[in-house]
Amino acid sequence: MSERVINIGLCGFGVVGQGVLDHLERKRSVLREQLGVNIVVSRIAVRNLSKARDINVDPSIVSGDALSVALDPDVEIVCELMGGTGIAREVTVAALKAGKIVITANKALLCDHGEELLSLAREHDGHLLFEASVAGGIPVIKAIREGLVINEFSSIYGILNGTCNYILTRMANEGLSYPEILVEAKELGYAEAKESLDVDGIDAAHKAVVLAYLAHGKWVALEDVRRQGITDISQEDIQFAKNSGYAVKLIAVVDRDRALNSLRVSVLPTLVSKQCSLGSVDGVHNAVAIHGDVVGETVYIGPGAGRDATASAVISDVVDAAKLLIFGGPEGGYPFLDPAPRNGSNIVLASAKDLKSRYYVRLVVVDKPGVMAEIASVLAAREVSLASVTQKEVGEDEERVSLIITTHLTTEQAILDVVEDLGNLESLEEKPFSMPIGNFA
Amino acid sequence: MSERVINIGLCGFGVVGQGVLDHLERKRSVLREQLGVNIVVSRIAVRNLSKARDINVDPSIVSGDALSVALDPDVEIVCELMGGTGIAREVTVAALKAGKIVITANKALLCDHGEELLSLAREHDGHLLFEASVAGGIPVIKAIREGLVINEFSSIYGILNGTCNYILTRMANEGLSYPEILVEAKELGYAEAKESLDVDGIDAAHKAVVLAYLAHGKWVALEDVRRQGITDISQEDIQFAKNSGYAVKLIAVVDRDRALNSLRVSVLPTLVSKQCSLGSVDGVHNAVAIHGDVVGETVYIGPGAGRDATASAVISDVVDAAKLLIFGGPEGGYPFLDPAPRNGSNIVLASAKDLKSRYYVRLVVVDKPGVMAEIASVLAAREVSLASVTQKEVGEDEERVSLIITTHLTTEQAILDVVEDLGNLESLEEKPFSMPIGNFA
Repeated sequence: MSERVINIGLCGFGVVGQGVLDHLERKRSVLREQLGVNIVVSRIAVRNLSKARDINVDPSIVSGDALSVALDPDVEIVCELMGGTGIAREVTVAALKAGKIVITANKALLCDHGEELLSLAREHDGHLLFEASVAGGIPVIKAIREGLVINEFSSIYGILNGTCNYILTRMANEGLSYPEILVEAKELGYAEAKESLDVDGIDAAHKAVVLAYLAHGKWVALEDVRRQGITDISQEDIQFAKNSGYAVKLIAVVDRDRALNSLRVSVLPTLVSKQCSLGSVDGVHNAVAIHGDVVGETVYIGPGAGRDATASAVISDVVDAAKLLIFGGPEGGYPFLDPAPRNGSNIVLASAKDLKSRYYVRLVVVDKPGVMAEIASVLAAREVSLASVTQKEVGEDEERVSLIITTHLTTEQAILDVVEDLGNLESLEEKPFSMPIGNFA
Repeated sequence: MSERVINIGLCGFGVVGQGVLDHLERKRSVLREQLGVNIVVSRIAVRNLSKARDINVDPSIVSGDALSVALDPDVEIVCELMGGTGIAREVTVAALKAGKIVITANKALLCDHGEELLSLAREHDGHLLFEASVAGGIPVIKAIREGLVINEFSSIYGILNGTCNYILTRMANEGLSYPEILVEAKELGYAEAKESLDVDGIDAAHKAVVLAYLAHGKWVALEDVRRQGITDISQEDIQFAKNSGYAVKLIAVVDRDRALNSLRVSVLPTLVSKQCSLGSVDGVHNAVAIHGDVVGETVYIGPGAGRDATASAVISDVVDAAKLLIFGGPEGGYPFLDPAPRNGSNIVLASAKDLKSRYYVRLVVVDKPGVMAEIASVLAAREVSLASVTQKEVGEDEERVSLIITTHLTTEQAILDVVEDLGNLESLEEKPFSMPIGNFA
């Protein structure tokens, strides 16, 4: 009997693509023994044919045309590792229409086109797998879909962007400003040359949208994710956090309110208690805390990016895909339960009027009599109750002082109004900075 | 077309069995929508037919005979939730011989008979699933087998017994002694009336053996697990830890040395840095830190026991089992890769001479001249190098002092020898207490 061969087409051969090839090759004999099939990368699509690479491949399998690799009749599994939502989408759509299994690590693609892509997979009896798209090497998608399958998820909190967490950790440990750390992070390769996707929270929002879909069956549009990046976080915020037993983290939240049948997805700088599971997750690590109605809270921590961690997740999808091909299974839908029956389409977006939290607000004001009274009356007018006020001089300029306010529980709408009202005061020297004070376990 | 029904036989209807029934019933319609089948608990075996229970069941499905429930021809999935290794083994063996899928949460059974049971499953085209056997509701077995499938595991560290972690956490927070906390823990239901299985580290050792099998394909006998419980841990140890930035945790270790082709499984009180991922896992929580050669370290934290958390894990196995029954799949082996090809049978047990660590040793000695010299020469004779010595008076008795020694890196054999030699000194008032100082990330 001749050996069953499963051919993989790698579309995209950057850092992650090379990692996937490398580890598949190294462990090929182990996988062959365990699965009884030979998993072979038979075609590779690269963007630049002439570029030198760390890893040697047979030039005859390399092509500049990703579409032809994905549609090669011998290729059963397509790994889309190109990134972006242009050609990556074309390739994914074409492969799914051809009934293939597509594996992607591309959270932007999923966020923007996940609904279309998953329905194409169902329609054409293919599959779309994406373990590597959220939290890198941590198998958190498998946990949500399979390990915690009987749970409904009231909330999911995550540190989903390693670059931001690295910058915030260094700001806390070294007392340097955001711009200073950013420059170094870029030099060290921890931040991209164009950093916006990371530091503005867009990447984390993409991932939060994927988690929200997995947990609740609803695709939330990126523009409906309340989002704030880390660029306005100052050393004062970091120091206030430290002195109060907190850390400033960029936290993605997927919050479900069953009574209101609402869902909230946000990515915001947040004061997180050092005691809670996310508060001490530092550096480039990612972490996801999942609250299930049956299990309670489980937390997953690990490397959220990088060649090898991402390859580990992509290859777990390759093996799941290989099992589907070898052992069969129902078409479209399997191997995972489809979250659609959770009635995601009926869920509404939460209103800022219904979201409650304590808040931190930092203001830079002119130091003159009456300012505090003015501020207090703005808060009072919005029925926001002060918990504490700390005043500090800013640098050498004695006329500017910084006021740090914490509030009691209030609504997001109230704090948005307060921040807007405060921004209109003449005594304000800078735009106010605000963030929620997390009340996670 | 009539609906496909999958009948489950619950053998054992204690806390966990009732939880499984409860949550399966609550979510039956969701599972039915998602899987397209009706999962029904059709038979329940109880130990005591006349016992009152929190949950109502149709008396006609309840039996006192677990074997007849497991062998009922209509029952396709058997949940063995009885515990112990007597009747639980009989029932599991019989069901596997009948080609059924057996789900168990029973780590003692797996530790003692896992090899036999898994080979029966293979032989008779059945399956044995056991997600709930380690770390309760945390889907760590799925992570090792599927999510991290491409990894080889150099080490796995775990807090695997919630009772011990609860006691140690309270000892640290409240300054009370082990016997005091134990009494309260029993009253609160956090410790069993017969506490030995927990506090002597036996339960954690069972779980570590299961993890070692999953990661390396070798069944290590319980007597080959180096094991020490928490009963000898004193407030002095806890306070020393606190003052040095550590916590005392009962840590299970599965350590693989590929150069020596050896495996080490141990459960020992261990000084764990508060900075590392396991150091701040408190209370009844469990945690597992897994080092994979591709992904690096991933950490899983959550509830390690309890009705609902355990039911969550059992039901994830029920759904995997249902998928196998609905969608088919190869017989025996699937749905998981079999770790056997990792050549577990060739792996040898690590020798204490090859295991290196720093150590903590606490001695209670008569306070007289020359004692320290005596102790130092014992260490020197075994080539163990002192890193620090702290002396403290013990209670009101001025003649007894306690000496806390930490060593530089040395072998386990050397420390075992040192502890034995020290125990023979006349000036020793109590048996020495020693534990490794963890060097985990």
